[in-house]
Amino acid sequence: MRIVVLAGGIGGARFLRGLMSAAPDADITVIGNTGDDIHLFGLKVCPDLDTVMYTLGGGIHEEQGWGRADETFTVKEELAAYGVGPEWFGLGDRDFATHIVRTQMIGAGYPLSAVTEALCARWQPGVRLLPMTDDRVETHVLIDDPDGESRKAVHFQEYWVRLRASVPAHAVVPVGADQAKPAPGVLEAIADADVVLFPPSNPVVSVGTILAVPGVREAIADAGVPVVGLSPIVGDAPVRGMADKVLAAVGVESTAAAVAKHYGSGLLDGWLVDTVDAGAVDEVEAAGIRCRAIPLMMTDLEATAAMAAAALVLAEEVRG
Amino acid sequence: MRIVVLAGGIGGARFLRGLMSAAPDADITVIGNTGDDIHLFGLKVCPDLDTVMYTLGGGIHEEQGWGRADETFTVKEELAAYGVGPEWFGLGDRDFATHIVRTQMIGAGYPLSAVTEALCARWQPGVRLLPMTDDRVETHVLIDDPDGESRKAVHFQEYWVRLRASVPAHAVVPVGADQAKPAPGVLEAIADADVVLFPPSNPVVSVGTILAVPGVREAIADAGVPVVGLSPIVGDAPVRGMADKVLAAVGVESTAAAVAKHYGSGLLDGWLVDTVDAGAVDEVEAAGIRCRAIPLMMTDLEATAAMAAAALVLAEEVRG
Repeated sequence: MRIVVLAGGIGGARFLRGLMSAAPDADITVIGNTGDDIHLFGLKVCPDLDTVMYTLGGGIHEEQGWGRADETFTVKEELAAYGVGPEWFGLGDRDFATHIVRTQMIGAGYPLSAVTEALCARWQPGVRLLPMTDDRVETHVLIDDPDGESRKAVHFQEYWVRLRASVPAHAVVPVGADQAKPAPGVLEAIADADVVLFPPSNPVVSVGTILAVPGVREAIADAGVPVVGLSPIVGDAPVRGMADKVLAAVGVESTAAAVAKHYGSGLLDGWLVDTVDAGAVDEVEAAGIRCRAIPLMMTDLEATAAMAAAALVLAEEVRG
Repeated sequence: MRIVVLAGGIGGARFLRGLMSAAPDADITVIGNTGDDIHLFGLKVCPDLDTVMYTLGGGIHEEQGWGRADETFTVKEELAAYGVGPEWFGLGDRDFATHIVRTQMIGAGYPLSAVTEALCARWQPGVRLLPMTDDRVETHVLIDDPDGESRKAVHFQEYWVRLRASVPAHAVVPVGADQAKPAPGVLEAIADADVVLFPPSNPVVSVGTILAVPGVREAIADAGVPVVGLSPIVGDAPVRGMADKVLAAVGVESTAAAVAKHYGSGLLDGWLVDTVDAGAVDEVEAAGIRCRAIPLMMTDLEATAAMAAAALVLAEEVRG
């Protein structure tokens, strides 16, 4: 079975671990979000791709969910001693090496997809990891300018990590997405897929950004295979992160049903909500999306594998 | 008193520490060799400038003479795990931060001289540290190609660090030097100097490379002030390093007298040799260079300060 997964960072990566456990023989292609990529210290940092790579490759800091296990921060401390920041972004020494290799390869002319493949040659994540695009897409968030009456756009990482989504987001703009082309292999993987899954990743800044790359949404709709998602909202609140802040920016309520309807029945065939949101099943189904309520907390690998298995069962159900 | 010092790496840096102790009120400008600069992992590394900066700024690994104290090598180990080398060049985590800052500033358009000033704002070396040029100069060494009958050029660092000067050097070429311009402040510092000193740095790949930048040699000759050097050769052998290998490449014997004559009386007014080389004094003086024999081993700060003091005394003697 060929499965395509559109993944953000922590939530996507953890779901993938469950999926690989539930479907060990599946051929999985992950299309990773690159809209939260950022240049720091002259280096290209791809937080979501790396979170997937480290998680599936056994290098992740388990409790934290991002970054490397057994990490040290000598380089960052030295950069701070030079007065060079930002200090709010936690790049560790092990992690730095990944960004140094990536930046060097990109400087030598390799596209991000080739770089990602080279990095994965070390990590052996067990999936094929593709960036959504080799082109530059940068998610910006429009916030109130604290120094004035106007608004200003900040990089998603600045909104998410530095400001911790503590101020209202008026808009989320994947800058460059309209000009981006899907990376080599992305459209082919979707066309060849038996199932497409949306993990409980952020529907705006993770899955939404991938869908904003021209051709991706259309390829999924045209693939003619079940498309099943898992709600990142449980009990009207994001399972983790601050998804409600960016949902508000695009005018979507933070409910499991509203997110399903935001994707829409033109894209989504099936939707899993948590058992606490069982009351939303009818509303989602009324919107033309098959819906089931199951426990959606990725507390451990077993629970996560059960979620992935349920998504695959729902896929077969909608395939009919 | 305004003193200009043409410095390489370890020998130059240690001499400078002695000079600052011997002449605490002097205004010292260091013109640093950049011919052994190298791009590693996409980062610009300036070994000689950094050795001077770390040594005078209190950050040097004292026993080793280069690199940072309390250094760790996490980034390098991770790069090796990606299969990315070279492994023969010992870049530590603390050191990496310097190269990241430098590379980022150069990428932003700042010349190396401005970058060096910015880095020194942290280290406060107590001297004005200028790169010899902001242009790219790269010292290459011509060696026998082990794979064939022909010869090949390797970067100086590859010859020095990887090969440890274990094969004959047929030529030393400061590639780009003929097109290089002295960095801002270099010619002005020389013109304003009261004394110019050549520390016991390598006469070919350190001091020689600085002198290869068009205008530097002429400025020193034209300054009309005493130019005094200290022999890096003691008892017919280099005090440290493998200076004899690159001296052979330029057809100069590894003796204290031969190095003085290599600089020549057109450039050099005074020359200090070690007491074991006292027999060379007459030969040097016969070449028109005032010469004295004193202990030249930089065993500690006191001994090094005595060497620097002797150089200043000899400078006043030749000033007449």
